[in-house]
Amino acid sequence: MPTLIVSNQRTEEMVGDLELLDPEYRLYVGNQAQRMAWCLQDGDVLVLPMAVSEDFLRYVTAALGIARDSVEVLVPPTGCFGEGVLSQDRLTDEGFLTALRQAVQSRGVDRVLPFHFDSSVAELTRTLGLDKATPGFGFLDQGGGRLLNSKATFRALAGGTGAPVPPGGVFSARQEAATYLWDRLLSQGQPAILKQDFHVAGFGNEIVSPTPGIDPLGAQRAVVTASRADLDAYLTERWPWLTDGGRNRVVIEQYVPESAPIYAEVRIEEHGVEFTGHGEMRMKPVLNGLIVPAPSAELPAFPGFLDAARRLCWPIHAMGYRGIVSIDAIVTPDRNILINEFNCRTGGSTHIHRIGERVVGDDYFTERVLVELRRCTFPPFPTAVRALVERGLAYDPTTRTGVLITVDDDSPSGGFGEYCVIARDAGQARELEQAVADVLTPLCAKD
Amino acid sequence: MPTLIVSNQRTEEMVGDLELLDPEYRLYVGNQAQRMAWCLQDGDVLVLPMAVSEDFLRYVTAALGIARDSVEVLVPPTGCFGEGVLSQDRLTDEGFLTALRQAVQSRGVDRVLPFHFDSSVAELTRTLGLDKATPGFGFLDQGGGRLLNSKATFRALAGGTGAPVPPGGVFSARQEAATYLWDRLLSQGQPAILKQDFHVAGFGNEIVSPTPGIDPLGAQRAVVTASRADLDAYLTERWPWLTDGGRNRVVIEQYVPESAPIYAEVRIEEHGVEFTGHGEMRMKPVLNGLIVPAPSAELPAFPGFLDAARRLCWPIHAMGYRGIVSIDAIVTPDRNILINEFNCRTGGSTHIHRIGERVVGDDYFTERVLVELRRCTFPPFPTAVRALVERGLAYDPTTRTGVLITVDDDSPSGGFGEYCVIARDAGQARELEQAVADVLTPLCAKD
Repeated sequence: MPTLIVSNQRTEEMVGDLELLDPEYRLYVGNQAQRMAWCLQDGDVLVLPMAVSEDFLRYVTAALGIARDSVEVLVPPTGCFGEGVLSQDRLTDEGFLTALRQAVQSRGVDRVLPFHFDSSVAELTRTLGLDKATPGFGFLDQGGGRLLNSKATFRALAGGTGAPVPPGGVFSARQEAATYLWDRLLSQGQPAILKQDFHVAGFGNEIVSPTPGIDPLGAQRAVVTASRADLDAYLTERWPWLTDGGRNRVVIEQYVPESAPIYAEVRIEEHGVEFTGHGEMRMKPVLNGLIVPAPSAELPAFPGFLDAARRLCWPIHAMGYRGIVSIDAIVTPDRNILINEFNCRTGGSTHIHRIGERVVGDDYFTERVLVELRRCTFPPFPTAVRALVERGLAYDPTTRTGVLITVDDDSPSGGFGEYCVIARDAGQARELEQAVADVLTPLCAKD
Repeated sequence: MPTLIVSNQRTEEMVGDLELLDPEYRLYVGNQAQRMAWCLQDGDVLVLPMAVSEDFLRYVTAALGIARDSVEVLVPPTGCFGEGVLSQDRLTDEGFLTALRQAVQSRGVDRVLPFHFDSSVAELTRTLGLDKATPGFGFLDQGGGRLLNSKATFRALAGGTGAPVPPGGVFSARQEAATYLWDRLLSQGQPAILKQDFHVAGFGNEIVSPTPGIDPLGAQRAVVTASRADLDAYLTERWPWLTDGGRNRVVIEQYVPESAPIYAEVRIEEHGVEFTGHGEMRMKPVLNGLIVPAPSAELPAFPGFLDAARRLCWPIHAMGYRGIVSIDAIVTPDRNILINEFNCRTGGSTHIHRIGERVVGDDYFTERVLVELRRCTFPPFPTAVRALVERGLAYDPTTRTGVLITVDDDSPSGGFGEYCVIARDAGQARELEQAVADVLTPLCAKD
């Protein structure tokens, strides 16, 4: 059935106060909202925070094998937090709602798929009369999205289902947190990561370490607290930030440096938990983008990770959530796999798996390697597409290899583009990646 | 296996700041902690906040059919919140821990059953090395108790499992709460109940009503807010209290006056959800105590209530909680049944069902009516027991009818006693209740 797709990449329930997000970062995530265009099917309506070019829409729909006219894209007027985020004021704008209602009715849309199902989207869903057929609405309408977005909830469910997680706990009292941190971790030479209950993408995380030299992957920074006094001073200063002014709890875990981030993505459907795929954040040559499937899938610990991820989703299914769950984990230097988060929303990986399923084909996960790159600078979209075609680098449905531009670099400054290399193996992926850089970089000198 | 029973009737995670509880109320719940003596089995160790008389312990163990010496009762030194509550400082007292460790080891105790499994009990469990065999510890150790104690969590799980609940929602913004309250409820002539996310026994609840005359059952008070301006003024004043200074969300539901409170109690075990029983808060002649089984079980809506209660427990089971869940509901004047809360802890009804199972027999739920009365004033315990025996009112294992004193009235002021009438039917229960009053009341003129 046609779906209303709302690409709200950041919400208050994901990150706390949207105002606190850097304006440049808001534009970045607003541009990145294009990723959800890869979820479009016949008849769908897509709401984006920022306009996207017709060229890009034609490119995406052609790759997906649907007619451009079969889908509609709407952008509400800019709101109080700028054009990068679909804040509540934008989703309740009268003119926008009129246009949206018309689009929804004329196309027979009966359900809503947002990036994150927060209370604003729940309200929009009810306003449009789409609550009945939207899977999981009963749960989401009663604050279920916030419940599952809590890192404290993750720790409880991981503890309850026996998932392998880094040693840690959930704390509301600073004193108890300090004792735990010092006695169990820092005094044993182990660094720790402190996580705000509600935040995404590492922006609410900090690391404390008894020794310098920690690369703060998944956190804003690493602070050296070599003594209990250092630690107490750090917590005195940062506890209000960590707890959002005493509002929330703090998740504390052992931090394992030099680990590789991986994920498994599943879909929670009425009948149960369906596996979508897995991937790895690329660490080399730079930390940028995804590799699908995860190269670490060959490790002995990997099947246990997938089992644990599935068990972790049973309570989420039983609660009544329906939709995508991304289970994030790390591969430690000793090749252990520890789960450290789940995200019950459309993920940064979702569109890559959609491209695999719908563009490459059902066997993409076994027959191909997909490498995604983010934060790239492109020449203007038509120039970039033409150059890729001319050099034989564009995705070719016959060989089922080549390059797709997944997010157009629509920013004045450049650097917001994303593309995906589809290759037979890692070696070919590396070659294609280098070839793309060789072709596009010289074309990037914008005026 | 022998169990360490910790009768912590109120915890910070149940009620917020223990300091805010009225000192008289703290003594009341401290005395009431005796209820858990009815859960004792051979070899168990019971931790109470306040000492209990040897006479009472002999009475309870005799009724349960176990030797007094087969169980041990410990009371830690009084802590910072007084003798009524088992605050964290009491459970970490060194001398107490030494005695407790000895008792636990000598009796081969291997698991912990508290009234409420909060983080203090989790810490105690780990300190004593009982974490391995205590069911559900992995979940509880990672803050699962707090998660399930949240009324916002209840609303999400009820929404997700399709449980019949009063119309309502979960709010963090005052403005949205005001709009919902006014547009959906008050302006339609419906009163509403506003619930703090974390609180028990109605102490965190208030009612707002467009009209006077509401009996605030399950809430501290009913406030008349006849206009939107009244409502806004009320919320401006009370929002900080309702949200605990902005820390938590507020659950808002339609309030249905003149409803009867009922509950179903279940046990979440490794293999699934087991039904314990159900009961009703007695409304007449006074609101006091429980009737087991619930007289409303004859209503057409009752089987649907039990089904919904069971469905609501599936996610709780999947999360990894193990233990008692009490699902609270109301029977509305039009004989509908709406669920409005669950409590994942030992309940105020648990000891009554234990008495049924262990004193009366397996068929108690179909063959007997149990009526519990609370806040009674007794003569000294031996006097009361003697008088009941002499008048033929004491519980008789042959007829399986009669009266058990379930909580000794150990307070200087009186009024903390509780007893349970076990009768063949409601008529006999009424007769026994009257006879007990006739016998004990004249003996109550203390000195």
